[in-house]
Amino acid sequence: MTATGFAARIADDRRAVEERLAVVLPRADEEPVSLHGAMRYATVAGGKRIRAILCLAGHRLCGDPHREAALDAGCAIECLHAYTLIHDDLPALDNDDIRRGKPSCHKAYGEAVAVLAGDALLTLAFEILARCGVPAEPVLESVRILSRAAGSRYLVGGQVADLEGEGLEPTEERVRFIHCRKTAELIGASLSIGAALAGAERKKVLEIHGIGRSAGLAFQIIDDILDIEGSAERAGKALRKDAKRKKITYPAHFGIGVSRETAGRLIADGVRAMEALGDDGYVGHIFSLIVARSS
Amino acid sequence: MTATGFAARIADDRRAVEERLAVVLPRADEEPVSLHGAMRYATVAGGKRIRAILCLAGHRLCGDPHREAALDAGCAIECLHAYTLIHDDLPALDNDDIRRGKPSCHKAYGEAVAVLAGDALLTLAFEILARCGVPAEPVLESVRILSRAAGSRYLVGGQVADLEGEGLEPTEERVRFIHCRKTAELIGASLSIGAALAGAERKKVLEIHGIGRSAGLAFQIIDDILDIEGSAERAGKALRKDAKRKKITYPAHFGIGVSRETAGRLIADGVRAMEALGDDGYVGHIFSLIVARSS
Repeated sequence: MTATGFAARIADDRRAVEERLAVVLPRADEEPVSLHGAMRYATVAGGKRIRAILCLAGHRLCGDPHREAALDAGCAIECLHAYTLIHDDLPALDNDDIRRGKPSCHKAYGEAVAVLAGDALLTLAFEILARCGVPAEPVLESVRILSRAAGSRYLVGGQVADLEGEGLEPTEERVRFIHCRKTAELIGASLSIGAALAGAERKKVLEIHGIGRSAGLAFQIIDDILDIEGSAERAGKALRKDAKRKKITYPAHFGIGVSRETAGRLIADGVRAMEALGDDGYVGHIFSLIVARSS
Repeated sequence: MTATGFAARIADDRRAVEERLAVVLPRADEEPVSLHGAMRYATVAGGKRIRAILCLAGHRLCGDPHREAALDAGCAIECLHAYTLIHDDLPALDNDDIRRGKPSCHKAYGEAVAVLAGDALLTLAFEILARCGVPAEPVLESVRILSRAAGSRYLVGGQVADLEGEGLEPTEERVRFIHCRKTAELIGASLSIGAALAGAERKKVLEIHGIGRSAGLAFQIIDDILDIEGSAERAGKALRKDAKRKKITYPAHFGIGVSRETAGRLIADGVRAMEALGDDGYVGHIFSLIVARSS
């Protein structure tokens, strides 16, 4: 398939995710309306849906037997991702007022509702996943993958290390600890949950997870570079924050040139590894977009 | 069995929960140590473990085939309960400095780590449950029960309604909306998850859930009465907060006498309903302690 064909497939998948998200999230007029409004505000309309698209791609790679379930799983991961953004933006954490071009959740709904909307989205992620309707064992395996990736040893642990690293010297060990946990693991989980729901054997699921993790590391490296070089307007959030807060980032330790090279190499390796697993080029195409993106 | 026998069983179950919690929680010296320290601080040592004990009791009622799994599920529910306390105590929410007789989590670890420790405990609850090792379908059913009870339509929705109700007139409708959601549903879920993991049929699981929900309502009513009449020292937290914040509570609407009567009636009905399901008196005994407690 050509790049244009892949781009159309991504657009289709993204549209499907948007449509399904609007259905699986509670209606905004359901009581308490502030909570349900905040949950939708932070989740619907906005975001690249990279994680959901990767979940669908991982599922397609393994035969695409339960597309509706993979779509629900992708929505679950987007709800979980939205929760991390809400809590990250809180005054006690990164204190960001703008997210996806709009006031961040606590600016729009107040801090209490923002905390609780994040909590509810995290909980909803597991509820959507647990109800996605495939045989129980692959679903349960997906719950295991997601809860591990999102827990204190990965995602949340990375966020704490990121916060506590502010002002510390950006050693290679610290950079890797933070990046691998904060972002990479959930990207790996997105791909491998799609594969698990397709009934792929455990060995393949783990391989796909590892490849996705490396691509996720590249994703975070590019994010850090865009925080330095990018356009705030295009990003829909404040930039140059990392330097201001003395965050530990890849470019802060390795410089922009080496960081971009590392990201490029991780992605090139990932594209090849996915091909070896039978990728028709689609997952590779999504990976390439990760390094090519400008927001 | 006599009341003394039941009391010994409760003590045994509680000890088993404490021991298992210490194992399933990440070690406090695992990086990031602040996060893992905060998670243990908020969960280990302290709390009546009512929810975990009910989970074990619900499981015992249905034959006790996978006691280890029910113990893990009980620990998962205690982790989830601990997260709700951490987030509830945050300055933006109830702003409580004391919990279980110690500084609340954000007082001991700072607000950022407290938010994230709560997030990690909620996530860990699903991870522990998903790994509890019983056949996949009952485990998945337990994940469904827990995620529903803890989500925006129940627990979190009740917390938002509780916060937003401050200062509003305590109508019967509002009181019920808040109590049934904030507390009752998770108590029902604790019992029914134990039953589900025992492989009980769906109809029985739902019945047990409903009975537990009513007992949970009684539990919250007594909590509200103790906030008025209790001893802060014994409770291990500040009291008389509801009146100060003009919270919507049962006694605020119905008065203490009627509230105590209602709680007593709910528990008496619950004890009888559990007997009809084959309870040897143990669940009934736990229910009775709910109304008899002084902290």
